[in-house]
Amino acid sequence: MGIGPGGPGHLTAKAREAVEGSDVVVGYTRYVELLGPLAEGKEVFATGMTGEVERCARAVALAAEGRRVAVVSSGDAGIYGMAGLVFQVASRDHGPGAVDVEVVPGVPAFVAAAALLGSPLMHDFASISLSDLLTPWDLIERRLDAAAAADFVIVLYNPRSKGRAGGLAKALEIIRGHRGPDTPVGIVRNATRERESVVLASLGGFEEHYDAVDMLTIVIVGNSMTYAEAGRMITPRGYRDV
Amino acid sequence: MGIGPGGPGHLTAKAREAVEGSDVVVGYTRYVELLGPLAEGKEVFATGMTGEVERCARAVALAAEGRRVAVVSSGDAGIYGMAGLVFQVASRDHGPGAVDVEVVPGVPAFVAAAALLGSPLMHDFASISLSDLLTPWDLIERRLDAAAAADFVIVLYNPRSKGRAGGLAKALEIIRGHRGPDTPVGIVRNATRERESVVLASLGGFEEHYDAVDMLTIVIVGNSMTYAEAGRMITPRGYRDV
Repeated sequence: MGIGPGGPGHLTAKAREAVEGSDVVVGYTRYVELLGPLAEGKEVFATGMTGEVERCARAVALAAEGRRVAVVSSGDAGIYGMAGLVFQVASRDHGPGAVDVEVVPGVPAFVAAAALLGSPLMHDFASISLSDLLTPWDLIERRLDAAAAADFVIVLYNPRSKGRAGGLAKALEIIRGHRGPDTPVGIVRNATRERESVVLASLGGFEEHYDAVDMLTIVIVGNSMTYAEAGRMITPRGYRDV
Repeated sequence: MGIGPGGPGHLTAKAREAVEGSDVVVGYTRYVELLGPLAEGKEVFATGMTGEVERCARAVALAAEGRRVAVVSSGDAGIYGMAGLVFQVASRDHGPGAVDVEVVPGVPAFVAAAALLGSPLMHDFASISLSDLLTPWDLIERRLDAAAAADFVIVLYNPRSKGRAGGLAKALEIIRGHRGPDTPVGIVRNATRERESVVLASLGGFEEHYDAVDMLTIVIVGNSMTYAEAGRMITPRGYRDV
């Protein structure tokens, strides 16, 4: 289940019911904390960021015993979240279809980020994670180039980590091969959470904001029609308009 | 504001508050109806599907007079929704930044569709609308080709209309140039609403489901790693996994 971007107001009623109706809550420590009082009194199995396979194995083992388990992701569970891993681990450990899994959708982080920026996603967009832990970096570069060449609005997830500081710079360089320096770029950190930060920059002037970007940041690069106006980032809904 | 895919359980608390705190509710008739009792007692300005510029002009005029107006979109307001048009019309009619606009995010239709299918969006994806009303068809083809060649999971919005019956067939033909016939394809209509329909097909066997696709349908085409198992469509989170 997805708990939305973090602010309690962005949880859906369905997601709330899923937590309330569960016996056990499983998730990354930080996301379980975001549930606040909702998770109180529940059995909780929380681990650090890299413990996700272990969390899934525990969750599906408990579910296979007949317990109701809520596996929480921030944002939506199906977008760079836990949903796929739950299916994969359930199948590996208990056989295909043996564990009953329901995916409860949530407001994805990039959608909350876009709402804070204005309306950058009004036309076709591509979402690309810059994490090369499980994806070859050359495929990530190929996707960046393809998306930039075909004028997609581009959403960057996991734009920067300590271990891979050069990835974002390289990604922006690829996009600059197809878009002008005035292209608006939105940088949103901790959307709807504490220490929320929303910056409207440009492709040419991104460098000065580089240090503010971490793994929790969503970066949205506009298409050729996107403009900034009165502090908002706006992509028109078409190429002949209003 | 986005009211989510339609089922009342998928509205966020924030979206609920936005309706409750409004003086006037503006939207496509069908979406205002989805709000049910929430919109009762409110002044409502609802028009048919093609009246969206008129609706926005009315909404921003009322807001400029100091009224609190909730402009409703299904799914998320920023993804093929009303958010961008509100900014554009507000600027055109009242000047940039003169009307105070807040975008309240919602669970997008494609995210709800993906949750019903399993976890098709676990890796990088591209969203493409097949509507050529405001976008040149050759650009849509270019995007389909770019997304398919770079192994994005592909989300198709507005896959079919009465006036443009051949677009979907052409789109699938382009994607088949890069993906095998066994590639899973999810077809979801009315996600979380009445008459919901979820079909798991394949790229090679799509034709038999062609008549079930309309403008309210979301089509999701898997990437090279996506597989179907126990009735679910699953994209692994990476290229080296579990």
